[in-house]
Amino acid sequence: MQIRIVGLRSLPEVVRGDDLAALVVEAAAREGCSIQADTVVAVAQKVVSKAEGCVVDLRTIEPSPLAAGWAEQWGRDARLVELVLRESRRVVRMDRGVLITETHHGFIAANAGVDQSNVPGEDVAAVLPRDPDRSARELRRRLRCGAVIVTDTFGRPWREGLVNVAVGVAGLEPLEDYRGLPDRGGRLMHATVLALADELAASAGLLMRKTSGVPVVLMEGVEWKAAEGSARLLLRDPERDLFR
Amino acid sequence: MQIRIVGLRSLPEVVRGDDLAALVVEAAAREGCSIQADTVVAVAQKVVSKAEGCVVDLRTIEPSPLAAGWAEQWGRDARLVELVLRESRRVVRMDRGVLITETHHGFIAANAGVDQSNVPGEDVAAVLPRDPDRSARELRRRLRCGAVIVTDTFGRPWREGLVNVAVGVAGLEPLEDYRGLPDRGGRLMHATVLALADELAASAGLLMRKTSGVPVVLMEGVEWKAAEGSARLLLRDPERDLFR
Repeated sequence: MQIRIVGLRSLPEVVRGDDLAALVVEAAAREGCSIQADTVVAVAQKVVSKAEGCVVDLRTIEPSPLAAGWAEQWGRDARLVELVLRESRRVVRMDRGVLITETHHGFIAANAGVDQSNVPGEDVAAVLPRDPDRSARELRRRLRCGAVIVTDTFGRPWREGLVNVAVGVAGLEPLEDYRGLPDRGGRLMHATVLALADELAASAGLLMRKTSGVPVVLMEGVEWKAAEGSARLLLRDPERDLFR
Repeated sequence: MQIRIVGLRSLPEVVRGDDLAALVVEAAAREGCSIQADTVVAVAQKVVSKAEGCVVDLRTIEPSPLAAGWAEQWGRDARLVELVLRESRRVVRMDRGVLITETHHGFIAANAGVDQSNVPGEDVAAVLPRDPDRSARELRRRLRCGAVIVTDTFGRPWREGLVNVAVGVAGLEPLEDYRGLPDRGGRLMHATVLALADELAASAGLLMRKTSGVPVVLMEGVEWKAAEGSARLLLRDPERDLFR
């Protein structure tokens, strides 16, 4: 019972309009890796965003009074704050310099996933892909692999540090549902639904460190259930979320 | 750049007083795996709790009026609710049948980590180890491996499904701190602290599924920084947590 996780290191700097699937295939071939029909491929959001042109020149952003005032209060870049608000459909917390919002996709994330690391230039920020599930589906079709997960690093309440989670999913059931199945002692399980896609994303994160230059990870040996898949299935139903 | 994750399947049913380290060494030998000086060993909380006798006979529990009333309102076992309250130092949410508390260790978890899956008998529940860091340290000393992580599956706000997180850590720095380091474009990173121990736990979780019979996972090829380590470092400072 074994899983192998391989990071691809030789992708070039990705820019708008690049054929990301072709770059992945070329990098895999160069590094002696093969992408099989049951490989799970994890791709960092940043390279997907870059290929899709989801990169914003902050000099084009005019901050609203809200963004300008709050940025000044907390020593932040007003253009970035404005961009975060534009990427959001709801502000979850806006306190002590921390801005947590719900994105138009429904993800709850610090700064709506807007991020300035590993982008070209001081006045540039990457935003999340418009439809990361669609990005995942397109990559899966082109790579002819088992499943694709688009990952990003998100913070979470209560625990320190960021973890990689799935923001786009194609080809697998992101939640593994044990409810109603017997455990190993024969007891029926009640509340057990595993966020498999997030555990896959976290595993890929072990190789996709910020300074490692690994934006794509291949995973072999994982058991998963084939399905169309969508990262939206990982969003908690607002009615059932005690923390909205 | 490659990580290998191997699950051990041949551990016997663990009971109070078992020498868990010896059982792990024997299972690894039986399955042809070696535990090296740089192996990260992840161990499911459930087997640690069983070996340490952190298993409670619910017939010995007398529910308080609070536990009894709330259990009746929501159709839950009053003895289990009482046990959860005893394992807690603070109730975070108690609503719609969901009980989220802060354990005596400081973990915020549904039902304080009290769990009836894969325990022997209807009237039995496992609780978290008293000091999971100590459990991890003791296992690491005996296994002579690089690091040990004791894992449990926790839910989280906003996202569906459980993920495995680290509740005990020995031998590694659980947070990888990039703050002040340059990214690949030379920009200094501000808010980037990766919860490495939780990503390792999630990776182990890919093999430790509820029905798989894999309570111990060996990980090779992970980069990490040696340190005494503690899962307490993963607990967010209450002053900085916007969700308390």
